[in-house]
Amino acid sequence: MANYSLLKVFCIAVMLGAIVIKGEGLMSDKQAQKKRGVSLACEILKQRFGDRFHTGDSICEQHAHTLTYLLNQPPDAVVFTQSSDDIKWVVQVCAEHECPIIPFGAGSSLEGQLNAPDGGVSIDLSQMNGVIEVHPEDLTVTVQPGITRKALNLYLRDTGLFFPIDPGADASLGGMASTRASGTNAVRYGTMKDNVLSLRAVMPDGREINTASRAKKTSAGYDLTRLLVGSEGTLGVISELTLKLHGVPESIVGGICHFETIAAACDAAIQTIQYGIPIARIELLDAVQVKACNDYSKLNLAEKPTVFVEFHGSQASAAEQSALFGEIVKDCGGSDFQWTNDEAERNKLWQARHDSYWAARGLRPSADAIVTDACVPISRLAQCVEETREDIESNNLLAPIVGHVGDGNFHTLVLVDPENEVEMQCAKAFAGRLSARAIAMGGTCTGEHGIGQGKKAYLRDELGDTVDFMAMIKTAIDPHNIMNPGKIF
Amino acid sequence: MANYSLLKVFCIAVMLGAIVIKGEGLMSDKQAQKKRGVSLACEILKQRFGDRFHTGDSICEQHAHTLTYLLNQPPDAVVFTQSSDDIKWVVQVCAEHECPIIPFGAGSSLEGQLNAPDGGVSIDLSQMNGVIEVHPEDLTVTVQPGITRKALNLYLRDTGLFFPIDPGADASLGGMASTRASGTNAVRYGTMKDNVLSLRAVMPDGREINTASRAKKTSAGYDLTRLLVGSEGTLGVISELTLKLHGVPESIVGGICHFETIAAACDAAIQTIQYGIPIARIELLDAVQVKACNDYSKLNLAEKPTVFVEFHGSQASAAEQSALFGEIVKDCGGSDFQWTNDEAERNKLWQARHDSYWAARGLRPSADAIVTDACVPISRLAQCVEETREDIESNNLLAPIVGHVGDGNFHTLVLVDPENEVEMQCAKAFAGRLSARAIAMGGTCTGEHGIGQGKKAYLRDELGDTVDFMAMIKTAIDPHNIMNPGKIF
Repeated sequence: MANYSLLKVFCIAVMLGAIVIKGEGLMSDKQAQKKRGVSLACEILKQRFGDRFHTGDSICEQHAHTLTYLLNQPPDAVVFTQSSDDIKWVVQVCAEHECPIIPFGAGSSLEGQLNAPDGGVSIDLSQMNGVIEVHPEDLTVTVQPGITRKALNLYLRDTGLFFPIDPGADASLGGMASTRASGTNAVRYGTMKDNVLSLRAVMPDGREINTASRAKKTSAGYDLTRLLVGSEGTLGVISELTLKLHGVPESIVGGICHFETIAAACDAAIQTIQYGIPIARIELLDAVQVKACNDYSKLNLAEKPTVFVEFHGSQASAAEQSALFGEIVKDCGGSDFQWTNDEAERNKLWQARHDSYWAARGLRPSADAIVTDACVPISRLAQCVEETREDIESNNLLAPIVGHVGDGNFHTLVLVDPENEVEMQCAKAFAGRLSARAIAMGGTCTGEHGIGQGKKAYLRDELGDTVDFMAMIKTAIDPHNIMNPGKIF
Repeated sequence: MANYSLLKVFCIAVMLGAIVIKGEGLMSDKQAQKKRGVSLACEILKQRFGDRFHTGDSICEQHAHTLTYLLNQPPDAVVFTQSSDDIKWVVQVCAEHECPIIPFGAGSSLEGQLNAPDGGVSIDLSQMNGVIEVHPEDLTVTVQPGITRKALNLYLRDTGLFFPIDPGADASLGGMASTRASGTNAVRYGTMKDNVLSLRAVMPDGREINTASRAKKTSAGYDLTRLLVGSEGTLGVISELTLKLHGVPESIVGGICHFETIAAACDAAIQTIQYGIPIARIELLDAVQVKACNDYSKLNLAEKPTVFVEFHGSQASAAEQSALFGEIVKDCGGSDFQWTNDEAERNKLWQARHDSYWAARGLRPSADAIVTDACVPISRLAQCVEETREDIESNNLLAPIVGHVGDGNFHTLVLVDPENEVEMQCAKAFAGRLSARAIAMGGTCTGEHGIGQGKKAYLRDELGDTVDFMAMIKTAIDPHNIMNPGKIF
């Protein structure tokens, strides 16, 4: 009996050992298999793409996340595609070897969308930057995904048309679609979801699809255009976009005014929207941001909560809008509203607004930036921004606020020393509180930057079980999770 | 050997017989099982819903497809829900017994969306017709799915706000979202895709989800709002909608003008859009439709291609738009453009436009109607409408044309004798050619009616493999295909 028991114990020990060894073996097998898949895919891509295929550390790091505090997780390789066929080729090879694919446009995303936590191949689309066709009579343009918004508008300059979405950075159109970008003009012209008419995309099985016709309206099946817009490269690689264009307004007038408090500035924005003034841009900069802009852009603005506005329309209509806005500003206790239709003067102001990211970083050049992005129903905007300002101050953080306040959307840019663990924790906790605050007010943890790696937990806080249905779609379309893995979910 | 061969033949015959019998057995088993599932689900629902549960022929037929030539395929039962919990209860029971569910709002869909080809339960949402909350300061309203657009606007009349989407019929908001409806105001205010901020929906596993926050913009994960809008009840039952509202314009002016040709009328619409005039409505009626409206609505309009328009804005802006439009009409050889801001006069005209469906049917009261719905890039509109008119005439069909021409969207209503097989075939072939024509011009087979049962083949013609990806989503979210089966796919 004793021997039998001993034997039993011995057998169990051997079995457990085997399981442990097998478990480890499985784990490493899986990882090793994954690594082999990536290596094989890279080997094949190298053969095909030659000097458009790169594995150098420097280029791989540049293609991962660079703009904020997030850890840089470079891909194993970068391939520069020049056509839809190139993309299909890359996707087919990567699909066969279950190699992750990370689409890359201009590199301006802010939530880690470009990182490669599982390695893989970054598809750099920046050489696919052409205009395929303009249909001025339909107010549409079809472009390749790598063209940037500034390049597109430069191309369109003689048509009398323009593409309005302006997220600040000179982002690529493919990237802007992927993150459902918006920015300063969205209050009037909508976001990417409203301005993409149809897409072509290479799906995870290597097939290229066209999501919709070029008609202005459609009820033809599920809205895959809107599903791909905002999907952050997790469902397919956008290979072509047909966009809505708008006529360059006969008259553009812009101006600036100051307020004593953030609440008063927000109230002016709220009243403007509620009054139905079709304002084209209404941007808030808090006093800290104004100081940063003064330093960076050599301006002399009063260092108070400041609103930049722009009106588009016929001469009569733009003037009418400006006059109405002036009255609202007066009601809210703002400074004299001065406006101009001088293009150079207007551009200088807006350049300062667009440079606000770099201006803010200039407040503490050695620091990293944690960029936040909250959006609330406009009735809650003043409260949300005020509470956020108090939160910043009571935690001794350096964090200017800028906002597309006509949409209830605002950002803080928290400047932090990445080596200082206490400071980092404090800043991250602040960002978490901001998301929670926006969600509690009926808003969202991201108005325009997306979920990426940075906001996965908040997405679940905001939408609960809804995320399960997003994940079902992801799994159905990309069963091997090769498309930008580790993002959103 | 002979005996052996005989035995072999006998054995093969037995095996084949067994396969045939087994095949038949399996078929009937499956059908019988399905039927048992429906019966069981109905039994349970009857217990719970009592006199809100109906199986009478008449009520079941009323809940299937009634408005066009499509065969009426009634459900096995109709249940009237009064709350989200009711819907969840129905869906959970039906999911357990794999019983089809067909959501029903006001019954005004046009492509067979309400038919029950596999039987099942129609969920009548018309008693869920309340307004949950209005946020006038955010320009949003949250409603139950059964409220109709007219009831909603009546409710809102003292707020200075309105919901603009107007598909003609007094449809329910849930139904309008499901078919991605639009109609007369879409040229200015967009379609349902642009005016639904978020949805609650009971999904096929019985869980109710909320697709988005109440913020005006979001980049929080996949756009399930836009996925459900236009999904025709195939992914879930919409249980609540949060909608965007718009301020009632200070000034509304409307008018009417005639043209000698359809092409000239279309050209006026095209130029208006290209000129960037923010026209609120621009509707074309061809001469046949004008005659029908004269008869039905006791009007005296010239029986020529006619355009109804409406402008919204400040007094100055509406007047400016009208004047610009008047110049375009003159350029296109139209009649004097007369406009009015008299509400009663305007309403009479628009009522005639809204009654155009019934007016058209009045042209041949005993006939059924095949209603078409094509949408093309506006640059192709005149050609598409002209070719369609020629097609109608050369086939001796009676088919007035009406169109939301600012969007490139138009309908014909082909009046056919359902007993006359030749006539029916001719009309269906015409409808097929119209879809093909629109698709060939870069347009869609449906601008606003949806795919339903009627346009499944055209969807594949239009979007090819893209339909496979729609089907993957359908299967992932509704693996047992209980949500409005037989539609879209």
